[in-house]
This record gives sequence, C-alpha cells and structure tokens, in this order.
Amino acid sequence: MEIPPFQRIAVVGAGLIGGSVLLAGSRRGLAADFSCWSRSAASRRLLADLGVATVHERIEDCVRGADLVVVATPVDRIEETFATIGPALAPGALVTDAGSVKAAILRAARRLPGTVTFVGAHPMAGSEKAGAAHANADLFAGRACFVTPAGDEPRAAVERVAAFWRGLGCRTTECPADRHDEIVAAVSHVPHAAASALMLAVVDQPGFSPAAAGTGLRDATRIAAGEENLWLGILLANAPAVGAGLRSVEARVAELRAALERGDAATVNRLLAEARVARQSLDRPA
Amino acid sequence: MEIPPFQRIAVVGAGLIGGSVLLAGSRRGLAADFSCWSRSAASRRLLADLGVATVHERIEDCVRGADLVVVATPVDRIEETFATIGPALAPGALVTDAGSVKAAILRAARRLPGTVTFVGAHPMAGSEKAGAAHANADLFAGRACFVTPAGDEPRAAVERVAAFWRGLGCRTTECPADRHDEIVAAVSHVPHAAASALMLAVVDQPGFSPAAAGTGLRDATRIAAGEENLWLGILLANAPAVGAGLRSVEARVAELRAALERGDAATVNRLLAEARVARQSLDRPA
Repeated sequence: MEIPPFQRIAVVGAGLIGGSVLLAGSRRGLAADFSCWSRSAASRRLLADLGVATVHERIEDCVRGADLVVVATPVDRIEETFATIGPALAPGALVTDAGSVKAAILRAARRLPGTVTFVGAHPMAGSEKAGAAHANADLFAGRACFVTPAGDEPRAAVERVAAFWRGLGCRTTECPADRHDEIVAAVSHVPHAAASALMLAVVDQPGFSPAAAGTGLRDATRIAAGEENLWLGILLANAPAVGAGLRSVEARVAELRAALERGDAATVNRLLAEARVARQSLDRPA
Repeated sequence: MEIPPFQRIAVVGAGLIGGSVLLAGSRRGLAADFSCWSRSAASRRLLADLGVATVHERIEDCVRGADLVVVATPVDRIEETFATIGPALAPGALVTDAGSVKAAILRAARRLPGTVTFVGAHPMAGSEKAGAAHANADLFAGRACFVTPAGDEPRAAVERVAAFWRGLGCRTTECPADRHDEIVAAVSHVPHAAASALMLAVVDQPGFSPAAAGTGLRDATRIAAGEENLWLGILLANAPAVGAGLRSVEARVAELRAALERGDAATVNRLLAEARVARQSLDRPA
C-alpha cells in the first residue's frame, strides 16, 4: 500500500465543501487519518455517521497534530477561524482554504503563526444546496480549482497544496489572489447577484404567475436559491469587482431596454446575437 | 378505432414547435391526415423524412382542405402568414397559432376571412434549440398552454382548439390576450432579455474567463443562446410590458449594487434572502 501524502488532514467547517473534502480525501487515501469540526451539533452528528473522520467539538482539538488543515468555514468567518486555530496549529503545518474570495483571505492569513504556511485555494464546486448532508465524494471531480500563492511562501508548499486539491479530483490553476477575485466576480459573483435581482424584479411584475414559470426562468434564477448567509460574505468581500460588474449589467439591460422602447430592431437584434454568440462560446470545448 | 377529432391538420411553419405538433398529433391520432409547409428546403426534406405529413412547397397548398390550421411561423411573420393563407382556407376552418405574444397576433388575425375562426394559443414549450431537427413527440407533455379567446368567437371553437392542445399533452389555461402578454413578459420575455444583457455584461468584465465558467453562469445565461431572429419579434411585439420589466431589473440590480458599495450588510442580506424565498417558491408544488 502506498504511503498517504498526509498524516492527518483536519477539516475546519465541514459543510458541503468540507464534508466533500472528507469523503473524497478518504476515498482517495490522501491521509492516514482525518479529523473535522463543525459549528452545529446536527452537522457533527451527521459527520460522525459518515464515519470517515474523528469529529471534534472544539475547533482547537480538531487541528492539533494535523499536517494539513483545510479551512472551509463561510468567507466572513475565516478571519475568526484563523485567529482561533492559530495557537493550536502544529509547527510546519500547511493551511489551505476553500473560500470564494482570495485577496481578503490572504490578508487575514497574515495573522496565522509564522511556523505554518498558508496557501489559499478555491475549488469551484459550490451548489445552491448547503450543508454536510449534501456532501459527496465526487463533488470535485473535474472541477476547476484556483490556487493563489502570495509569492513569498516556499514553492514546495504551493505544490503540495495544489497536489492535494488535484488529489480530490480538481484541475488546478495558479494565479494571484487579486486576479482570482476579478475572474470569479465576472463568472460567479456578478451572475449570482444579477440572478437574485432578476428574481426580485420578476416577482415585482404585475404579470408574475408562479404557475406559468417555465424552465427558462427556473434556470436563469436557480443560483438565487443559494444561502444568503454564504453569499453575503462573498459579495461583501469582493464588493469593488462585483459592484463594477453590476454597473455593467445595469448598463447592458438599459441599452437593450432603450432599443426595445424606441423600436430599434437592428440594435435589439445585434445585442441578442452578440449575447447568443458569447453564450455559445461557453459550451465550446476550450 | 375512434374517429380522429380532425380530418386534416395543416401545420404552417414546421420548426421546433410545428414539427413537434406533427409528431405528437400523429402519434396521438388527432387527425386522419396531416400536411405541412416550411420556408426552408432543408426543413422540408427533414419533414418528409419524418413521414408523418404531406410536405408542401407552397403555403397555400398546405392549408387547402384542412379543418384545423396551426400557424407556427415566427411571431414577426405571422401577420404575413395570415395574409398568404387567407384566400386558400376552407370555409369553417379553425385556425390557431403557437406564438409567444398574443395581443398583436389577435389584431393580425382580424385580416383572416370571416368564414374561418381564429383562436390564439401559446404552448410554453420552447427551447434554445430551434428547427424541425429538434422536434419531438413529447415536447408538449405536461406543458402549460395559454388559449386566448377574443371573446366574440363561437364558444365551441374555443373549446375545440383548447382540446386540440390538450390532445398534444398540454395543460391549457384560458385568459385574455393582454393578460397573457403581461404574464409571459414577467416569466419569459424579461428573463430572456435580462439573461442576454447579463451575458454581455459578463463578457465586458476584465476578469471574464470562459475556462472558469461554472454551472451557475451557464444556467443563468442558458436562454441567451436562443435564436435572435425568433426573440427579436417576440420582444418587439411585447415591448411595453418587457420594457417595464427591464426597468424593474435595472432598479433591483442598482439597489443591490448600491447596498454592496456602501457595505450595507443588512440590506444585501435582506435582498438575497427575499430572492431566495421567491426562487424557492417556483419549485414548490402549486
């Protein structure tokens, strides 16, 4: 039997993402031993039932002795999590995370002890379904995962963290935290906020009838069903890029609406055609 | 064997919807005989291969002798289609359509001969995939279909047309054309235009990277891949209601964006929560 890459992997905040790290990591033999912690007693019971990790009630006990710590708490709690786990981390431990923003988390990670190395990551494997109950061992299979080094950490640490996420099934890409945040604003945070705003606007309409809603509306607004508690932290932590993107959404909606209102068929047709071509390009193999 | 409800059903404009009417109508035995016409020679060959209807090169030949004529040309061609088929329609024929707007089509139908009866309909069974090649006999199964009487036609005609659409598998709902247009603006046309504008705004962003696009962005913009030639006519024919809805989208996006920019967590949280609740209500059984 091959020696697992890690002795002990600790997952702090074991919801959808953290729970899936445990299931995938255990199935793929990434550590000899797994430990985890979750804030809610219900999640801890559920994690105990999964039977793949030692479940701790105290966050410090969870990380003690781990050579890899995966922080998967919500984005707006990661700073607090770092402060709590800091004193209990083993010297030489690697710390990574799964947060959807990276620049703010990189700044927060400067508060971790100098004896550990942090390398941020963002596996793009969310879902509108939150919680350990939805965790699954295949969540990361084939998914893109950003790894965002600060630039001043040992190269081997970056490579070890990237190999860990690949070990779970991800395809990893390295890029600076600021660039990551700009990318996810465009492809994830702005679409999420826009889908929420669209949902509100649809309900505002005098003609809104849930019984008449088809697959088009359902698809266009599916992500708006995401937990606001998770998304609030993400959007606030990436507010400048998301704000700029939403201004662009306002401008494009206004452009299309004004063309419609003045009966300018050529402009409406051009905008719809450009949008179609752009959308079709998403489905083209890279 | 039961006597089919119609002697001959003619489908004028046999693309995705019209082709599916032929396949479903033939499988369910709704007529003794089917005829059809399509503008493109390629579609006519494809329809001939399906083998369920006599394919005509001239639109007038297609409708001659039919006791039910289903007009399934694009919305912005329906007026022209009515003008062309008018002289060839059999006295007493029923005419229905499948257009996504109803008030403008009802006005256009006033140009049909007084010897026929028009009852508009809108089966909500579109797809971003257009053309007879995507037609299928199950397209209408369980789908909502609006039937929009003018109010001055024989009641029996309305009931016969509604029964025809139910015969294809739809669940029918009667309502006035104006009300229909308001409903579909809210649940279909505004989401379509907003998804197109979002797609354009996403591509505008400095961080846009097709390789990073996940299922969230793909779902939110899927309908933007629709054919602009179909949607241009629909949006223009329902411009007042769509314009009002898009103004509401602009306002909701601006509201969320301004709250984000001023770091107003309470407002962002409330808007995301309201959108989540509204979205989840779409999935609740009626």
